[in-house]
Amino acid sequence: MRAARLHRYTSNVDEAFTVEDVDRPEIAAPDDVVVEVAAAGWCHTDNHIVEGAMRDIADAELPYTPGHENAGTVTEVGDAVTSVEPGDSVVVHPPMSCGTCRACRQGEDMHCPDHVFTGLDTDGGFAEFLRTKARSVVQLDGLDPVEAAPHADAGLTAYRAVKRAAADLVPGDYAVLVGIGGLGHIGLQALHAISPTRTIAVDVKDEALALAESHGATHTVNAREADAAAVVDDLTDGGARTVVDFVGSEDTLSDGLGMLRTGGDHHVVGYEGDLHVPAQALVGQEVDFRGTLVGTYTELQELVALAEDGEISVRTSTHDLGDINEVARRLRDGDVEGRAVFTP
Amino acid sequence: MRAARLHRYTSNVDEAFTVEDVDRPEIAAPDDVVVEVAAAGWCHTDNHIVEGAMRDIADAELPYTPGHENAGTVTEVGDAVTSVEPGDSVVVHPPMSCGTCRACRQGEDMHCPDHVFTGLDTDGGFAEFLRTKARSVVQLDGLDPVEAAPHADAGLTAYRAVKRAAADLVPGDYAVLVGIGGLGHIGLQALHAISPTRTIAVDVKDEALALAESHGATHTVNAREADAAAVVDDLTDGGARTVVDFVGSEDTLSDGLGMLRTGGDHHVVGYEGDLHVPAQALVGQEVDFRGTLVGTYTELQELVALAEDGEISVRTSTHDLGDINEVARRLRDGDVEGRAVFTP
Amino acid sequence: MRAARLHRYTSNVDEAFTVEDVDRPEIAAPDDVVVEVAAAGWCHTDNHIVEGAMRDIADAELPYTPGHENAGTVTEVGDAVTSVEPGDSVVVHPPMSCGTCRACRQGEDMHCPDHVFTGLDTDGGFAEFLRTKARSVVQLDGLDPVEAAPHADAGLTAYRAVKRAAADLVPGDYAVLVGIGGLGHIGLQALHAISPTRTIAVDVKDEALALAESHGATHTVNAREADAAAVVDDLTDGGARTVVDFVGSEDTLSDGLGMLRTGGDHHVVGYEGDLHVPAQALVGQEVDFRGTLVGTYTELQELVALAEDGEISVRTSTHDLGDINEVARRLRDGDVEGRAVFTP
Amino acid sequence: MRAARLHRYTSNVDEAFTVEDVDRPEIAAPDDVVVEVAAAGWCHTDNHIVEGAMRDIADAELPYTPGHENAGTVTEVGDAVTSVEPGDSVVVHPPMSCGTCRACRQGEDMHCPDHVFTGLDTDGGFAEFLRTKARSVVQLDGLDPVEAAPHADAGLTAYRAVKRAAADLVPGDYAVLVGIGGLGHIGLQALHAISPTRTIAVDVKDEALALAESHGATHTVNAREADAAAVVDDLTDGGARTVVDFVGSEDTLSDGLGMLRTGGDHHVVGYEGDLHVPAQALVGQEVDFRGTLVGTYTELQELVALAEDGEISVRTSTHDLGDINEVARRLRDGDVEGRAVFTP
Repeated sequence: MRAARLHRYTSNVDEAFTVEDVDRPEIAAPDDVVVEVAAAGWCHTDNHIVEGAMRDIADAELPYTPGHENAGTVTEVGDAVTSVEPGDSVVVHPPMSCGTCRACRQGEDMHCPDHVFTGLDTDGGFAEFLRTKARSVVQLDGLDPVEAAPHADAGLTAYRAVKRAAADLVPGDYAVLVGIGGLGHIGLQALHAISPTRTIAVDVKDEALALAESHGATHTVNAREADAAAVVDDLTDGGARTVVDFVGSEDTLSDGLGMLRTGGDHHVVGYEGDLHVPAQALVGQEVDFRGTLVGTYTELQELVALAEDGEISVRTSTHDLGDINEVARRLRDGDVEGRAVFTP
Repeated sequence: MRAARLHRYTSNVDEAFTVEDVDRPEIAAPDDVVVEVAAAGWCHTDNHIVEGAMRDIADAELPYTPGHENAGTVTEVGDAVTSVEPGDSVVVHPPMSCGTCRACRQGEDMHCPDHVFTGLDTDGGFAEFLRTKARSVVQLDGLDPVEAAPHADAGLTAYRAVKRAAADLVPGDYAVLVGIGGLGHIGLQALHAISPTRTIAVDVKDEALALAESHGATHTVNAREADAAAVVDDLTDGGARTVVDFVGSEDTLSDGLGMLRTGGDHHVVGYEGDLHVPAQALVGQEVDFRGTLVGTYTELQELVALAEDGEISVRTSTHDLGDINEVARRLRDGDVEGRAVFTP
Repeated sequence: MRAARLHRYTSNVDEAFTVEDVDRPEIAAPDDVVVEVAAAGWCHTDNHIVEGAMRDIADAELPYTPGHENAGTVTEVGDAVTSVEPGDSVVVHPPMSCGTCRACRQGEDMHCPDHVFTGLDTDGGFAEFLRTKARSVVQLDGLDPVEAAPHADAGLTAYRAVKRAAADLVPGDYAVLVGIGGLGHIGLQALHAISPTRTIAVDVKDEALALAESHGATHTVNAREADAAAVVDDLTDGGARTVVDFVGSEDTLSDGLGMLRTGGDHHVVGYEGDLHVPAQALVGQEVDFRGTLVGTYTELQELVALAEDGEISVRTSTHDLGDINEVARRLRDGDVEGRAVFTP
Repeated sequence: MRAARLHRYTSNVDEAFTVEDVDRPEIAAPDDVVVEVAAAGWCHTDNHIVEGAMRDIADAELPYTPGHENAGTVTEVGDAVTSVEPGDSVVVHPPMSCGTCRACRQGEDMHCPDHVFTGLDTDGGFAEFLRTKARSVVQLDGLDPVEAAPHADAGLTAYRAVKRAAADLVPGDYAVLVGIGGLGHIGLQALHAISPTRTIAVDVKDEALALAESHGATHTVNAREADAAAVVDDLTDGGARTVVDFVGSEDTLSDGLGMLRTGGDHHVVGYEGDLHVPAQALVGQEVDFRGTLVGTYTELQELVALAEDGEISVRTSTHDLGDINEVARRLRDGDVEGRAVFTP
């Protein structure tokens, strides 16, 4: 089968991949599932992978096939698999978790110490087929795989963050969303769908704010043109209940304190920089800084249900796998609208 | 009546106070309560007050009477007061909150934007009598005022922190408590009383660790003699569920990441330094840093119930108000055992 | 001023009230607030009051003025009142709570053992003016008093029930709402506004189901024409996560077990009959039956915020106070569309 | 191997079992685990099984081997098992759950619609060996199998109930435990270990109350000699926060309302009779009746941790499997002290 393989780490993203013929994955364990990939999203993390920046935490040996936002059709299943069968349309939860450790048993499967992450630790979806596990496939009920694929990582990370935020949000509260890009525009829609909060979208680009407005943001602020914390303070009479920070730079992280009311939370999703604040500020304002990781398997089910209910739309552009190097270059240059999805 | 008054800010804590005669406070509003002070604890914050370090956030004008850890007997009540009557033994919740703002109405009275903090914003308990509000007195049911006074602030802050921590702790979990001093030794006892957690007490002084052991700590670590994070890792097989940090220095705050398992929380109570960690560490380990303030009125009720049930004992030494300057000096020099309480 | 007074209990609701001149209420305590009533809703409980069925739990002595769903304009405030001032538009939380008991201090003010319920224990809003307390008035920010009044009791009870239900509802879940009348149609809208749940509205009247559909119910079932539990089972693949029961008859209460999945909850709002189920059914299916009372002050703030955000509309018809007996009769005969609101 | 087999349902419990030679279970699937049974507890449910009263919900075909409270040593594991190995000491979680359904993925494995219950749906532990699944074995770290076995069902059910209760209990609160038998005496110890609550133990037998006292009950009440609700009301000043009902008769279920304060919960564990209360009582007092089932796998881990920490002791008597019929008779006649455990 055809696959886009990475043979060496490089800073030239536009020549990173070799599209070549490799063996098609086969069932090797009773809980294996083979999926014919219909859609594989390109994630910002793929840039880091290509550059070798993930080497310390990812276990794949070169050459290998990246791609961790995958959806498609089941073609083959192992003997022990009863939850899906060939022909089923699925989206793939990236972690393949053990199912028996305490984290897995509590439902926090992405905390499984032995999980293998598809497309980082082992071959992923930039190929015609991929092999995963019964525990990692979520059934689709009509959702287009191209719509579903970006939810496997980008959407799921955004959803988990806003779900944790929503647990504390009641009518009349304000949530500030910082950074309305790939994750942010999904997070904004999901937050409105699952909670009654009013929202303030903050970005430095007007087109991002226009997107936020089209997805129902109550207010928008261009942080280049205004003091965002002052605007939030004006709008909210005492501060927002929560900040969901899809950027995570030293600036956005410390600006949050000025946006939050006493007892508020700052959810950290992006991780561009350092969190650097006086402990006294945390204590005096009783603020929490809460890191958030990719979501669980059941959270991916929930996000798919939201998308199937029509509550979330993702901007995507589809591409042929053969064009992966060019698409990677155009993504680096900001020359692609919406989330790039390959359709192998 | 006799009161210890602060006339000017000074770095010489041993000559800060003038014990003098002042007017006895009287009922001035229908919800006022006058308390004859039986016990007034000296808190570390009083050192900052004397030095003028709290000037920005405290509203009292000099001269005034500090003292925010108070217990005693009600002597007079306003017309509208029905919850206590003269003769009742009470401990005083330091914030006098408005009772009508949304924070007050939700029970988070110490978030009341209009609260007045006894002993910081207005006259406190280093005097024979103090005036407070019906909303700020918690009934004692036999607890000695000298035992009760330190709970008003030190105990209450520790209790709130461990109560938030306890919400996530199940049998088999580990909690690390960093700094077993005035707050820490109360927090440790309260945590054991309200949760099934195993505990690891960390300090740099052997006598603090001996105190921790006497209060039931499962393990103790002297952070001067061992790599505390490594010890915690060994003991816990994957990390502790929670760290409660009564120090809050840059070191203790960043060490927490090495002690916590994925998904763990670091509760920040002390605030000696800055929190400075990479956002990527927060996200990758899905850790929360949670600031914690003094507790609510109902939390003070709960802490008093714990003490009355015999679950918490506080080390105190009692002193005459006339000796306040000398006691303050001895406290500065580490020459007082246990919490100093004045008995005006 | 003009007031509709009840002089004796009667089963003839159409001659129960005498509209007469009485003294206008005045400020009698420092926390009193006098409100000029702009809108006073008639609640189903008022029928029970007129008949004397509430005598055991309501303390008012005849003659008195009922009316517990009130909104209007503040005209006078006591010396201690700072949260509102004359001219403010408000809706009145029916319980006047003490503010110092533990229930009040935790925010559960309607559990206050000493609360006085406006219109049940003392004079209410079927009059030109009413006297209440600073702790019982919620500011309106533009919401029409006629829209706001029914929220004081009917809306607030429905909101509290669905808020408790929503805490467990995630995307893909189903909630069944039984009885889409005065409370139910508000509960349905509020539930969609605060949660991502899919809903199944159950009633025995087609016009109620049409109303449910217009407010976004995902499915509707006429329980006279179909086996509602079987329909729910079909739609949900294993049962609903929650039932919110605005009827509470012996039938609707036991039918819930057939609608719920394992681990589901049945929220009891209406109380027409008895709950009678085998304990083994509760245990084997791990179901909770959860009674729900009128909401708290802060929940009324939240409901008002929802209404001001345009998320909830209430069907009302306005009437002159002089027509109260005729309106009561027409309400008894089912001859009024929407919630009847008097505009004294 | 030797096994105690049930060949036909009978009301003569003392002749129900035939101890005979049967084939030793073998690994038949990659996730199978064979355990040499060191201890198999007799549960009250076994009486119902023998009588055929569980036929509707249990799937085993006669003849078969009951026994669902099992502990022992792993002797053999399937190819896919990595979480245990031969020689490991384990206690067996009775449900063998699928691991892929949504309930399993959320950690609520005993809600798995496809679970098979050891000793009810298939051969259990009244034998020298039993076969279970990797997902059903909890590692012991020194706990005696005889101590561990009763925790598999009796202990686990009690623990789950008190864990749910404990989530709402703060210092100063009261919990009433009704029925201090096999489940109740474990529940009482666990509740004290995990929460700060004060407890009131209610039973009709003085020796049960003596047992409760020895395990730290704050108060005890003999419901034959006193009006338990009145005593609770006296002790608690307004009612208990929670009732945990290990009996579940119509009387204990309706008595709970008189014991609970407004907003309290009645946890239903036993299921001797019907719950029959007016809906108005549920609503007016805002009480919840909460059914509770056997606990999850991770809750069994937690209970084992409590027992290993020395927080829970169970009264057991050990017996030879050959005496099963006589022991069953003596249990029926109330002639065995503590929980009967067979040591095959």
